[in-house]
Amino acid sequence: MEQRIEVGVLGATGMVGQHFVKFLQNHPWFELKWVGASDRSAGKKYGEATSWRLDGVMPENVSGLTVEESKPGNAPRLLFSAMDASVATEIERAFAEAGHVVVSNSRNHRMEPDVPLLVPEINADHLRIVPAQQRRRGWKGQIVTNPNCSTIVLTLGLAPFKQFGIQRVLATTMQAISGAGYPGVASMDINGNVIPFIGGEEEKMQQETQKILGEIGGDEIRHLDARVSAHCNRVPVVDGHMVATSVELRDKPDEAAILEAISNFRGVPQERNLPSAPARPVVYLEQKDRPQPRRDVERERGMTVFIGRLRSCPVLDFKFMALGHNTVRGAAGAAVLNAELMCSEGMLD
Amino acid sequence: MEQRIEVGVLGATGMVGQHFVKFLQNHPWFELKWVGASDRSAGKKYGEATSWRLDGVMPENVSGLTVEESKPGNAPRLLFSAMDASVATEIERAFAEAGHVVVSNSRNHRMEPDVPLLVPEINADHLRIVPAQQRRRGWKGQIVTNPNCSTIVLTLGLAPFKQFGIQRVLATTMQAISGAGYPGVASMDINGNVIPFIGGEEEKMQQETQKILGEIGGDEIRHLDARVSAHCNRVPVVDGHMVATSVELRDKPDEAAILEAISNFRGVPQERNLPSAPARPVVYLEQKDRPQPRRDVERERGMTVFIGRLRSCPVLDFKFMALGHNTVRGAAGAAVLNAELMCSEGMLD
Amino acid sequence: MEQRIEVGVLGATGMVGQHFVKFLQNHPWFELKWVGASDRSAGKKYGEATSWRLDGVMPENVSGLTVEESKPGNAPRLLFSAMDASVATEIERAFAEAGHVVVSNSRNHRMEPDVPLLVPEINADHLRIVPAQQRRRGWKGQIVTNPNCSTIVLTLGLAPFKQFGIQRVLATTMQAISGAGYPGVASMDINGNVIPFIGGEEEKMQQETQKILGEIGGDEIRHLDARVSAHCNRVPVVDGHMVATSVELRDKPDEAAILEAISNFRGVPQERNLPSAPARPVVYLEQKDRPQPRRDVERERGMTVFIGRLRSCPVLDFKFMALGHNTVRGAAGAAVLNAELMCSEGMLD
Amino acid sequence: MEQRIEVGVLGATGMVGQHFVKFLQNHPWFELKWVGASDRSAGKKYGEATSWRLDGVMPENVSGLTVEESKPGNAPRLLFSAMDASVATEIERAFAEAGHVVVSNSRNHRMEPDVPLLVPEINADHLRIVPAQQRRRGWKGQIVTNPNCSTIVLTLGLAPFKQFGIQRVLATTMQAISGAGYPGVASMDINGNVIPFIGGEEEKMQQETQKILGEIGGDEIRHLDARVSAHCNRVPVVDGHMVATSVELRDKPDEAAILEAISNFRGVPQERNLPSAPARPVVYLEQKDRPQPRRDVERERGMTVFIGRLRSCPVLDFKFMALGHNTVRGAAGAAVLNAELMCSEGMLD
Repeated sequence: MEQRIEVGVLGATGMVGQHFVKFLQNHPWFELKWVGASDRSAGKKYGEATSWRLDGVMPENVSGLTVEESKPGNAPRLLFSAMDASVATEIERAFAEAGHVVVSNSRNHRMEPDVPLLVPEINADHLRIVPAQQRRRGWKGQIVTNPNCSTIVLTLGLAPFKQFGIQRVLATTMQAISGAGYPGVASMDINGNVIPFIGGEEEKMQQETQKILGEIGGDEIRHLDARVSAHCNRVPVVDGHMVATSVELRDKPDEAAILEAISNFRGVPQERNLPSAPARPVVYLEQKDRPQPRRDVERERGMTVFIGRLRSCPVLDFKFMALGHNTVRGAAGAAVLNAELMCSEGMLD
Repeated sequence: MEQRIEVGVLGATGMVGQHFVKFLQNHPWFELKWVGASDRSAGKKYGEATSWRLDGVMPENVSGLTVEESKPGNAPRLLFSAMDASVATEIERAFAEAGHVVVSNSRNHRMEPDVPLLVPEINADHLRIVPAQQRRRGWKGQIVTNPNCSTIVLTLGLAPFKQFGIQRVLATTMQAISGAGYPGVASMDINGNVIPFIGGEEEKMQQETQKILGEIGGDEIRHLDARVSAHCNRVPVVDGHMVATSVELRDKPDEAAILEAISNFRGVPQERNLPSAPARPVVYLEQKDRPQPRRDVERERGMTVFIGRLRSCPVLDFKFMALGHNTVRGAAGAAVLNAELMCSEGMLD
Repeated sequence: MEQRIEVGVLGATGMVGQHFVKFLQNHPWFELKWVGASDRSAGKKYGEATSWRLDGVMPENVSGLTVEESKPGNAPRLLFSAMDASVATEIERAFAEAGHVVVSNSRNHRMEPDVPLLVPEINADHLRIVPAQQRRRGWKGQIVTNPNCSTIVLTLGLAPFKQFGIQRVLATTMQAISGAGYPGVASMDINGNVIPFIGGEEEKMQQETQKILGEIGGDEIRHLDARVSAHCNRVPVVDGHMVATSVELRDKPDEAAILEAISNFRGVPQERNLPSAPARPVVYLEQKDRPQPRRDVERERGMTVFIGRLRSCPVLDFKFMALGHNTVRGAAGAAVLNAELMCSEGMLD
Repeated sequence: MEQRIEVGVLGATGMVGQHFVKFLQNHPWFELKWVGASDRSAGKKYGEATSWRLDGVMPENVSGLTVEESKPGNAPRLLFSAMDASVATEIERAFAEAGHVVVSNSRNHRMEPDVPLLVPEINADHLRIVPAQQRRRGWKGQIVTNPNCSTIVLTLGLAPFKQFGIQRVLATTMQAISGAGYPGVASMDINGNVIPFIGGEEEKMQQETQKILGEIGGDEIRHLDARVSAHCNRVPVVDGHMVATSVELRDKPDEAAILEAISNFRGVPQERNLPSAPARPVVYLEQKDRPQPRRDVERERGMTVFIGRLRSCPVLDFKFMALGHNTVRGAAGAAVLNAELMCSEGMLD
């Protein structure tokens, strides 16, 4: 790829937008040339309009970009959307209608039956619904989404189990504060504390998981007929969502078969060696007390989900712990990997 | 009760022992007059032998007691055991054999079929096994135990559900660092982190719960035939174990019936108005984001288990969060309440 | 005092207001009967208008009070002000002009030369400036203030040194997150972190300390001619400001003389046995690693400042650590103690 | 440098030793080929003898090395010492006597007048004392040390001020838990807390700073005649020591002169472009609330000290905040940079 593809970020000044800016830095295929935000920021330099909240410093080449209004016009064809849910529905549609490829991290279109909800290692084939989406809506462009950050960790953790027939899943999360953006969770609420509630999170995990593990049927993505239950909690951790998971499997494999399935698990991103794809999307840790968010979340550039403590479950069949980086594999990295997958399919030509 | 009963604490210099010393301060029925510890400390004043690790200061009347060896002799009849599991088996037996009433927080004898594993609001009737224990072992004294700290929170949280037929329980804990004693968990391990493993904890929760919810049959306590699965995690919280719980019930009650059961739930300690009994052993919190350890754990002197977020579970029948104070209701307070129950039964006469 | 004095709280729905509501609960002299807040809350019940952020639950007798507009009218004569600095100037003046005794925790009038900035153990005599305040301003009422939370800890820590001639003070704070109110400090900013900046705090500590240690001269309070330098930092602690202090003293006392001064230090509140006065306002802790915020801040109902680690300083003369409860001794408790002092002076008759 | 120099680490299995192993990974000049530890570990593979406590995983090429006894014999000439202070004195001497170049992070020999206590950007010339050390002790080898972790941060922060004549320094630290090794600080001690005491730390900071800023005189390093006072505190931060510093300067420069001195400050490691030298050893951050440990400590591979908030001090002349990475610039990275400096001087030929 001699010349990089120009890309833009919608909602670039917010916390998720900043994660996109950081993740796209030095990307081999994509070059960030356009940043969109609210009218309040439009016209300013990105470096002036943005309070940089991430560790380290703002990439220099981005700080000089002029922030644009979130309207089709001079934007590149490929746009990553980091927009707040309160405004994403209309804006994403407007861009798709105008011919843009909108690769969105926002929740707004995730559950529509003709919009792919991608985890490329699991359901890359769901991209085949896009022509139906364009036909039904009369769009030249398209919208493709990635799941909620906790859903991605759960579904990647479950991915090696899929071949054994997933029937029931019970997941309890311990989620990092970075998942709530900025200012997000007040320190008075979470310092030395656990908050056993995250608005809308359990519903998202339950429904999105069924869609991701589902199959295309006609013009729609049909949900997997599995029962999924989530307990979602916030804990005082900076990055990394932990998901304590119990699963019931149709085929009743033994532990060795599951460990082998985890060890062998690869997806389309690995086959095609996509730039943001980790060598292995799911890695099993042998130590009895791993994975741990502070110690493991930055490994493999945050794109691998780590599993540990596989053991039999007296209530369902097996239980284990999964960990993933919520702002990388669970957000910006997820969307960029989606775009790389689409690129490898020729969808950006 | 005009004259208080003299009591002692075995393992008094350790962290759990300190919790007993603190909890027994100003107790209306019991007066702490004897402290036992390892030979290393014997002969010293308690105030010299002990590095006080709890908030505030050591009770003055205890600091002047002379630490005794952990051998029957001049000890009071009623002894609370806070001994480390590595030494508790032999020492507790020796005291029971010598006629002492050993009310133990140690795990060593918990699972023996003729030893009560008490949560007084749930299975006060299990005390009826004591004569069999004495007969089988030829003891004048006796050993009575309380469960592991996380088990107490789980079983009290489940107690109002018992009437509906508990069939399956899946519990994921987020446990406080004080549960590991002192020095316990290294700050390098838990600062901004989650540790998804606590040695032996899951087995204890699974087995102890079945015993507590079981029934006496002949000379033994028979376990409830329910399936219990636990995922145990350590989180950076000082006090208070959270237990995210899903439960399957034989009678399929609706939510209103359960809320009513929680609201009405009382046990023998409440009926008899025992000194350490909370007005209500289980309290439901209506706010959508409660209970929380830092904000709720000290309420009701740490003796109440708080439940919140009752809702239907797509995998089992209902799910909810339970919180209890691990070093009070889960340790020292549990044992003292056990002794109060025994006192009210005339077992200390 | 057979009948309690009715009092009100201005700004009662905010975080500081909630601390007043909590601290005034069961007060022997004062009865909270009136709560004022912004127009947005006026007319609602306090329980509905307020998101209770403190540990435990809202006092029942207050939750039923109707929130009033912050205007003189039906308010009691004695009012505690917990108003935000953005609105306190005009509102406090209006109440003072209308004859109310405004005992304020807000910073707005603190540095005016005819307004007492009280720490009752140090400068109770500054109340004598009030007649000048009333005369100069033509007020029937009055405004009396307490210092910033970190200043109170520093000045009480310094109080026993005053007799030796304080010449230079260098103070570095480690301040709790509760000092910033709610939502206050974002968890993404402070989790596992230190923030070396608190807006305006260093200036307040430097100037207020000089005023508190000063003397009345004519119609004004004249500042002590001492040099004070503050470094202010936020640390991930819930309650309790630590102040690492070095001090230069005119009289060059030895360590024993200072320890004796600390041991003997009492103030007017102790002499008059005011209800919120601690037995000793400043207590020296002998252990080499104390005071510590989590372990010591709740002792003595949060009204005592704890000092530790007194030792010689190679740069100034002595150095030590001081700790105080920022929302109790540093805010609500400070103002209530001020009112008790005024009551004992007959200023509320 | 076509062939890398073989090096060893004494005390390689401990926490500091692990930091050396990690820091030496892929070093362009040095190749870790030898690991020494206590007799208990000797003979085992490093991967078996070591509980890896750092983030990520143990370097593969090191895990297969056989742990050696800490005795001269087959060890490489250049050895880094990460030994515990309880054993370092004798062992380091034995190696130096046997001709080894011991580059030590241990405190044991730091304050001896013929042992360099190096911060290469400040006192590279102190290496000239080595021949005197060898002559006086009859050693073929030598011992060179780096300062305590907090001292390095303080002295690098002060380095640009040196030209103005440092007369008095008052430093208050907020130190990370990683500075105490493993298991180090108990979580029950530091969770949501501050510990205002670190054994021996204040004395080290005070004395080491004077030596580092001193000059060679005859066969000894003579201390700078400046007064230094330290308050040392532990805070719940994983990595990064903060040092709130006030300084008195002989030449009374203005703020602009100091900022220019910081901006221009470079040392020998920068001139010679040593592999571990940061481009700039001291960097000033303009933002009003920086540096912050969690956000800045990993920048520049942990080898830069960040300064912020320079402002005038009412008691001394200026005050500012300094931050450095305690296990990198304050320990393993410091020693490796010392060895690089020595290598560039031809001392390893």
